[in-house]
Amino acid sequence: MTNARLENPAELLQQAGHPFGERILALADVLAERSESPDGLTCTYLTPAHRAVASMLADCMRAAGMAVETDAAANVVGRYASDDPHARTLIVGSHYDTVRNAGKYDGRLGILTGLIVIEHLNRLGRRLPFHVELIAFSEEEGVRFSTPFIGSSAVAGRFDPAMLEVRDAAGFQLGALMREMGLDPEAIPALARDPARLAGYLEVHIEQGPVLLEENLPVGVVSAIAGAVRYTVNVTGQAGHAGTVPMGQRRDAGAAAAEMVLAVERRCLGVPTLVGTVGRLLVPNGAVNVIPGRCELSLDVRAADDATRDAAAADIFREFETIAARRGVTVERQETMRAPAAPCAPRFRSALAQAVAAAGVRPFELPSGAGHDAMMFSGVTDIGMLFVRCGNGGISHNPLETVTAADADVAARVLLDTLSRLGAP
Amino acid sequence: MTNARLENPAELLQQAGHPFGERILALADVLAERSESPDGLTCTYLTPAHRAVASMLADCMRAAGMAVETDAAANVVGRYASDDPHARTLIVGSHYDTVRNAGKYDGRLGILTGLIVIEHLNRLGRRLPFHVELIAFSEEEGVRFSTPFIGSSAVAGRFDPAMLEVRDAAGFQLGALMREMGLDPEAIPALARDPARLAGYLEVHIEQGPVLLEENLPVGVVSAIAGAVRYTVNVTGQAGHAGTVPMGQRRDAGAAAAEMVLAVERRCLGVPTLVGTVGRLLVPNGAVNVIPGRCELSLDVRAADDATRDAAAADIFREFETIAARRGVTVERQETMRAPAAPCAPRFRSALAQAVAAAGVRPFELPSGAGHDAMMFSGVTDIGMLFVRCGNGGISHNPLETVTAADADVAARVLLDTLSRLGAP
Repeated sequence: MTNARLENPAELLQQAGHPFGERILALADVLAERSESPDGLTCTYLTPAHRAVASMLADCMRAAGMAVETDAAANVVGRYASDDPHARTLIVGSHYDTVRNAGKYDGRLGILTGLIVIEHLNRLGRRLPFHVELIAFSEEEGVRFSTPFIGSSAVAGRFDPAMLEVRDAAGFQLGALMREMGLDPEAIPALARDPARLAGYLEVHIEQGPVLLEENLPVGVVSAIAGAVRYTVNVTGQAGHAGTVPMGQRRDAGAAAAEMVLAVERRCLGVPTLVGTVGRLLVPNGAVNVIPGRCELSLDVRAADDATRDAAAADIFREFETIAARRGVTVERQETMRAPAAPCAPRFRSALAQAVAAAGVRPFELPSGAGHDAMMFSGVTDIGMLFVRCGNGGISHNPLETVTAADADVAARVLLDTLSRLGAP
Repeated sequence: MTNARLENPAELLQQAGHPFGERILALADVLAERSESPDGLTCTYLTPAHRAVASMLADCMRAAGMAVETDAAANVVGRYASDDPHARTLIVGSHYDTVRNAGKYDGRLGILTGLIVIEHLNRLGRRLPFHVELIAFSEEEGVRFSTPFIGSSAVAGRFDPAMLEVRDAAGFQLGALMREMGLDPEAIPALARDPARLAGYLEVHIEQGPVLLEENLPVGVVSAIAGAVRYTVNVTGQAGHAGTVPMGQRRDAGAAAAEMVLAVERRCLGVPTLVGTVGRLLVPNGAVNVIPGRCELSLDVRAADDATRDAAAADIFREFETIAARRGVTVERQETMRAPAAPCAPRFRSALAQAVAAAGVRPFELPSGAGHDAMMFSGVTDIGMLFVRCGNGGISHNPLETVTAADADVAARVLLDTLSRLGAP
């Protein structure tokens, strides 16, 4: 099953008799052969590699029994219709673009799991009490045009037409590029689904973290996609000669910032779903023999619910002020990003948990600290997410990202069972 | 006394009837008019401004009754001979070069204080039981050729001829530049004084720190020039997604470094003469949404004696290892500099303290955290230093550097009295 040179992945899809997981991984291998770069997997929006992957996915969806269309945003949409023409539509989706030098499973695992499950249903001739749209979203990572969710925002009715003016690093304008590729940007607003006709949104995704690995579980049910706030923080003290200013007379911006870093850690440690990170930390023009007069840091705080996150951020900044006052330095902050938490719907959490238990796995819930296409559908329709264990310590956005065939197999069986458990909405 | 446009500073020197302090400050104003830059004081080795200042100082020394020579390293040496031709020689010195955008007193205050005191002795016809060499050292800051102490190392017999090969940023080679300026680099080794003929070395210098300001004292006696060790420290943890790795599963190099910064501060606080500084602090390629996988910091530790400094550095690195082990990160260090402490001679400390008390000032000792020309003479002859209060919170290497006429006056009276108290060695 590792013949990744196979030209037509649709043939691979239909090699019956193989467990779901092995076919999912083999398909991910084939998709990963299309890259912008010879020495790693990079597949960003509307590049030749990206167009090739879309075409492969369309072929696979067709082979799995779906009616396929590539829409104006380059999403590949496979429709597996219900017998009831008036039924509502459940979207199963994830993205097929990647970051630079990516792993093979971020985004694509969810598309391929949906694909393999629908192929199975179609093979058995089983229809569901709702239509299923399997959507391979064209863009989620935000790599080429610095704004993520181009594909899913269009389907969720959240695409901002101002985006069409944005240019990539090479100077290509998004709208012009779409037209050049035969896409019609004017048609994007019409891609928005009518929320009244939706039965919900489900997404399978690699965890991209170490929690399931630590819990020794193949899959977990996502409780919510965390809401994030981000800040840039500037600490200003008094520069001075490292040899001539006694310790007790210093207003060291670096030492103050160090205390703040530890305050972030202390406040977030032990609070479920809460994480706080100082990712950037810098004494500008720092010199070995100069007491830092300034220090810059970034702060990122996330939690599964906005109240937990906001309470933590407020406590952290209160503590920053206390530290600053005690040390005779000043602290200024600028909020650079705020995204609300996207809670998963209880009915999906419960259906997924039952399916996990039926697969012989202990049901386990965890928040998603990373953003996903599902976020775009929060507030539009019910969302649900299933995480799959990420190997190698939980590393992602990296060629070392791994998923085992056994875990992918569990994910597919859980998705299949979940679809079966969901009645007519 | 503020006619800083006066062309001939020697005339200014001889305007009798003015207190020492006012004349010292007026002379510093005149010297500061010669700069490489139109918008601030910069006077680096062998530039036209530097040559002009040397010439002014030579004129002043001659006018003060000294026999003057500009030596092969561009030091301006004024000899005020004893009546006893067999007497030994006391050097009184400091430097006339500056950093870029400098203050007017760093280095020059010491030269001018010596000048004004010898002018006074000469006016009274008083000779001392030792020869005095007032030396205006040509280079101490290390700005132009990245190596400090060119002038004082030559006189102390510590000049490294390999230095002559060094080039400045514009590509001028030190040795070639000296020849072009009419100096003979071959003659530098012969500038070394015979230690057996020296009676000691005394230097007056602006404190460049806030201690005397805080103590409300015009001058203080230096106990020792601190010995420094410097390190580059690298902390390596595990980079990760700021949203997906729970707090308890992180190996955050930035948070570990923050704890180390505070450990440095904690170990040094409250220990007399000991200072520890983390001047550089950086998460390389840090991003708001990435847990730091690496952090770089610098460490500078100084104390008035090497044992205090080395014990602190050892404790600090033991603590770094403890922090690293607890957090699952690694810490590597590289020693980048080690300079021994230069203790001041008890006989000079005592003579200076007596002179300070005689001037009606509470005698107070403090270490020098910064390096000075006096360091070059440590181990060659006895050294002694007098610090003068630095205004504006102790700021130096900056145009805001200030000294009051009253404080400079006290410094001159203390130097004069000290010279009087020192018997024939």
